[in-house]
Parts: sequence; C-alpha cells; structure tokens
Amino acid sequence: MKKDTYIAVVGPSAATPAEHALGEAVGRLIAEAGAVLVCGGLGGLMEAAASGCAAAGGRSVGVLPGERADANPYLTVAVATGMGEARNAIVVRTADAVIAVAGEFGTLSEIALALKMGKPVVGLGTWQLAKDGQAVDAIVAVATPEEAVSWALRSVS
Amino acid sequence: MKKDTYIAVVGPSAATPAEHALGEAVGRLIAEAGAVLVCGGLGGLMEAAASGCAAAGGRSVGVLPGERADANPYLTVAVATGMGEARNAIVVRTADAVIAVAGEFGTLSEIALALKMGKPVVGLGTWQLAKDGQAVDAIVAVATPEEAVSWALRSVS
Amino acid sequence: MKKDTYIAVVGPSAATPAEHALGEAVGRLIAEAGAVLVCGGLGGLMEAAASGCAAAGGRSVGVLPGERADANPYLTVAVATGMGEARNAIVVRTADAVIAVAGEFGTLSEIALALKMGKPVVGLGTWQLAKDGQAVDAIVAVATPEEAVSWALRSVS
Amino acid sequence: MKKDTYIAVVGPSAATPAEHALGEAVGRLIAEAGAVLVCGGLGGLMEAAASGCAAAGGRSVGVLPGERADANPYLTVAVATGMGEARNAIVVRTADAVIAVAGEFGTLSEIALALKMGKPVVGLGTWQLAKDGQAVDAIVAVATPEEAVSWALRSVS
Repeated sequence: MKKDTYIAVVGPSAATPAEHALGEAVGRLIAEAGAVLVCGGLGGLMEAAASGCAAAGGRSVGVLPGERADANPYLTVAVATGMGEARNAIVVRTADAVIAVAGEFGTLSEIALALKMGKPVVGLGTWQLAKDGQAVDAIVAVATPEEAVSWALRSVS
Repeated sequence: MKKDTYIAVVGPSAATPAEHALGEAVGRLIAEAGAVLVCGGLGGLMEAAASGCAAAGGRSVGVLPGERADANPYLTVAVATGMGEARNAIVVRTADAVIAVAGEFGTLSEIALALKMGKPVVGLGTWQLAKDGQAVDAIVAVATPEEAVSWALRSVS
Repeated sequence: MKKDTYIAVVGPSAATPAEHALGEAVGRLIAEAGAVLVCGGLGGLMEAAASGCAAAGGRSVGVLPGERADANPYLTVAVATGMGEARNAIVVRTADAVIAVAGEFGTLSEIALALKMGKPVVGLGTWQLAKDGQAVDAIVAVATPEEAVSWALRSVS
Repeated sequence: MKKDTYIAVVGPSAATPAEHALGEAVGRLIAEAGAVLVCGGLGGLMEAAASGCAAAGGRSVGVLPGERADANPYLTVAVATGMGEARNAIVVRTADAVIAVAGEFGTLSEIALALKMGKPVVGLGTWQLAKDGQAVDAIVAVATPEEAVSWALRSVS
C-alpha cells in the first residue's frame, strides 16, 4: 500500500485577501496531489487552506490549540488538544513537509520546530532567518502556490 | 449547519478476538450514525474500531502517542503527537462522549480524564470503580455495541 | 553521585481537613527522607503536601495545568504547562513512585497513567479498581502517611 | 508576599567554550538577582546556565523533552515531560522573560513561542529575524550577560 503524504500549511490566523488566495490555492493543490492537509484548524490562512482542500475533495485535519468549537468549517476532522501553543509541535510532527505562507510568531515557531525535526520547509512570503549577520537559508523561498506544493511533494519522495 | 458528533472508542492495543469483534461493531455503528470516530490510532481495539468505521464509509481520526508510522491502516487521518501517554487527554478532549471496550490502565486513564472533563462514558466489559468500599457508578455499563453507541449518541444530543 | 528520588503526591484540589492533614504529613515525610515532592501545583491536597514539604526544608515542584499564577505558595518551583489535564502525565512521568490520597477523577487518571508507565502506586483512602467483577489490586492500600512514604521509597530502591 | 521572577535561558545542547561561559554567567546573575532559572534541562548551554545558577546558590528547574535520566546534574528540580520538542512551549510559558544565547532551530522555536505569548526576549549572539526583506526587531540584542539579565529583569518589573 502506498503511504499517504501529509503536508502542513502554516500561516496567520488573520490573513489578508492576497494571503487567503495563496492559502486556498495551496490547499487545493495539496488535495489534487492526493496528499493530506494538516493545519492549526483555526481561521485566516488555516481556513483558507482547508477550504481549498475541501473544494478539491481532499482530506484535511486541524490540530486546535483549544476546543473543537474553534475549528473552521472546512476540515475533514478536527482535533482538540487543549494545549495552547504547544500544539504547534503536533501540527509539524504530523506532516512530512511544511509550507509556510506569510505568518507571525506562531508561524515562525512552526517553521523552527519543523527544521529542528529535520522536516523540509518551503515559504511563500514568510520569515527570513539570519544568525551573526549571516543569512541562514533553511526555508526554501518560492513565489507561487504551484512551486510551494510541488517542492514540498518532491522533498518528501 | 449541523455540528458533527465525535465519539472516542478506547480500549486495549492487544485485543482478543471477542474484543476485536466488539470494537469493529462499535466503529461501524458510529459511522452509520454519521458521527466521527476518535481513537488512539494504534492496533488492537483501536484498529478494530477504525476498520469497522472505514468499512461503513465513516470518518475516523487516530491520535498517536508517537509517529504516523505507528498508525493502523484504517484511519481517515492520523495525528502524530510525539507525547506518549499525554496524548490520552487529546483523544478524550476531541470527543463528545467516550465508549470504553475492555481495556488496561491506558484505557482507565482515558475513562478518568473523560469523567474529569465532564464527558459521558459508557463501557462494554471495562473497568468498575469504587472508593472507600462504595461503588462509583460513573461509567454506564452496557452489554452490546448497539447499546453503547446509542447511549453515547443520546448522551450528547 | 546518588540520584535523587522523586515522589508524586496526587489528590483532590479541594481537601477535607482530614485529607489536608494526611497530605501535609506525606509532604513532610518525603522531605525528611531527602526525596523531591512532585505535585500538580494547585490547592487542596497538593498545597497540603507542598506545605508539609516546605516546613521540613524539602524540595518540591508543582506541574500546573495553566499558568504560574495558579500555584500554591509552598512550592520550591512551579512549572506552567498550559496543557490542562494533559499535564497529569507529566506529574506522573517525573516521579519514581506515586502516593494517592483520596481524590476524584483527576487523581484516578494520575493513578492509571502511573500504572500504565509501570510506576508503583500506593494509596491512602483512594480509588479501588475492578474489572469484570474481579478486584484489580494494582494500588497498594495503606493506612498511614508513614506507611505510604516508606512503601513508596522501598518500591523505588 | 513578593512574587518570584522566572527567567528562561534557551540555547544549544552543544555549546562552544565561549557560549558555555556566557551561559554560566547568565545563570549566576539570575541566581544573584534572586530569580528562578528555567531551562530545557539537558547539556550544553542549559547545563552551563544551571551550573552557574547552582554555584551562586540559586534555584533552577529543567523541563526535559524525555526522562529525568537525561537531566544535567546542576538543576534544583528536573521535570520529565516525555513530549519531545512540544516541551519548548512549557519552558517558555513558565518564564516571565527569555534570554537566548546563540542557539539552533530549537532555540529559535523557543524565541518564537515566547514572542507569540507576548513575553520579552533578549539575545546574546542569537537569531535575527526578517520578513519581506525587512528586519523584525523583536529580539533585543545585547552584548554581555550582565546586560541580558538586567534587561530581562527590567522587562518584567
């Protein structure tokens, strides 16, 4: 049996219309590739990705910081951790690769946890990292949802 | 929009054939009722319930103590917590009601966490509780998978 | 270097005066034995144990479900998990043995998690377990704080 | 009663001699200020900070990803979470402010989680953040352990 591929989409809980469109496209492309979408289950970018995934008939799981009542309505399944930000580690551990779209500090924590776990991370207009004034190119920067999803899928296979 | 109902099925990771048959029936009945099955994602009773759910075309989520590689093959979606036994609290928090089938100490912890969170618990051949020599009737004991699932669904609505 | 021994004391967050006295004595005896007290960090039995430990000059750690502001004032150190009931698994994992005093469902979950992890559990007026009508004697029942602490220490060495 | 102040020190589990000296100084200064040191409990920078704290008679707690056996020997108390990287959220939640010394992706995740929780973060030779080519000055950069600890303490009061 071929194993499923799980791709996490991480990004802000309050998304601009442009970010929302990116998230929706990423979710749709993940579904069209037959992969499972993992996200934090809330609104904003997470909801955009889940709605794109649902529209394309894909499967998604939302790993919530609190209760199931907080879930966006597009998820196949919602999981209530009750663990607050500590749930970010579960989002990332569940995924084979991570796509970051824009994002604030919560998104940065998911990027960092993914890199710590050795998981590939690709970014669309997200964080840039440096240490001692030297860029740390751990996040692969791409320009389109198509590039993000195809890079994520290639990084896993 | 009508909200989904989530029912957790908790039980041993090594199930006897009789327990396996109970788990499968419970999973099937949850799916036939249109509810979502939550379980610990591993083998034994968890696998039996997920396989019954899948056979009836239902949705299930497995909340694993470790990695996705440990998941049984019948889950709609698997979540890798990497948290060991602490994931039992997530299984229970995700559910509206809990059905316990037989089970060892891990199952007892899920029963206790559910009762602590104020969630209804129904049991098929599972633990009995007492304190100071007095029975504590917090787990509703039933005799068949049909009774367990219909009681769980009624307790939620 | 001799390794420290950690003993968890688990019990209700609302304790009767008699339970409070038991908790205080258990905490004091743990400190006098040079062991470290682990508890859930809140009031009631947890506070009683921490205060007994502090009065005897011992070390204690409280593993809180929420924030440090909820800690009782007798702990050497408080840890804020923000994880709700899932923190019960941390209380138990941190300990070499567990002493349960009275207690409600939260205490039962800590007993069950400890037994699942293979850790010794001794009880003072706490839960009794049975399955299929047969007593399961996994919790060693004792009558005094002295017996509880000496049994816990012996079980570890 | 004056409330204790908790300062987290986060940094790499394999520290250079120069980083070790910084960690030790930070731990010592936290202890001399009467604050409690929080760290991840392992070796490297965490051990350096705990040893500096212990040498100055201070209190420290290590929040471990696995078991107590992995703890460095300088902690006042060690907590075994068994949760892997998800424990980073507990380290940060327990603290009132965070001092980051050098560090890899695990340290970056702790910085990001702290910023997400609204906690002050000061850095000694650690990560620099940017988004869309613009620096994000969320980590206050200082040059000495003295500046780091005095800034952290001021940020809290």
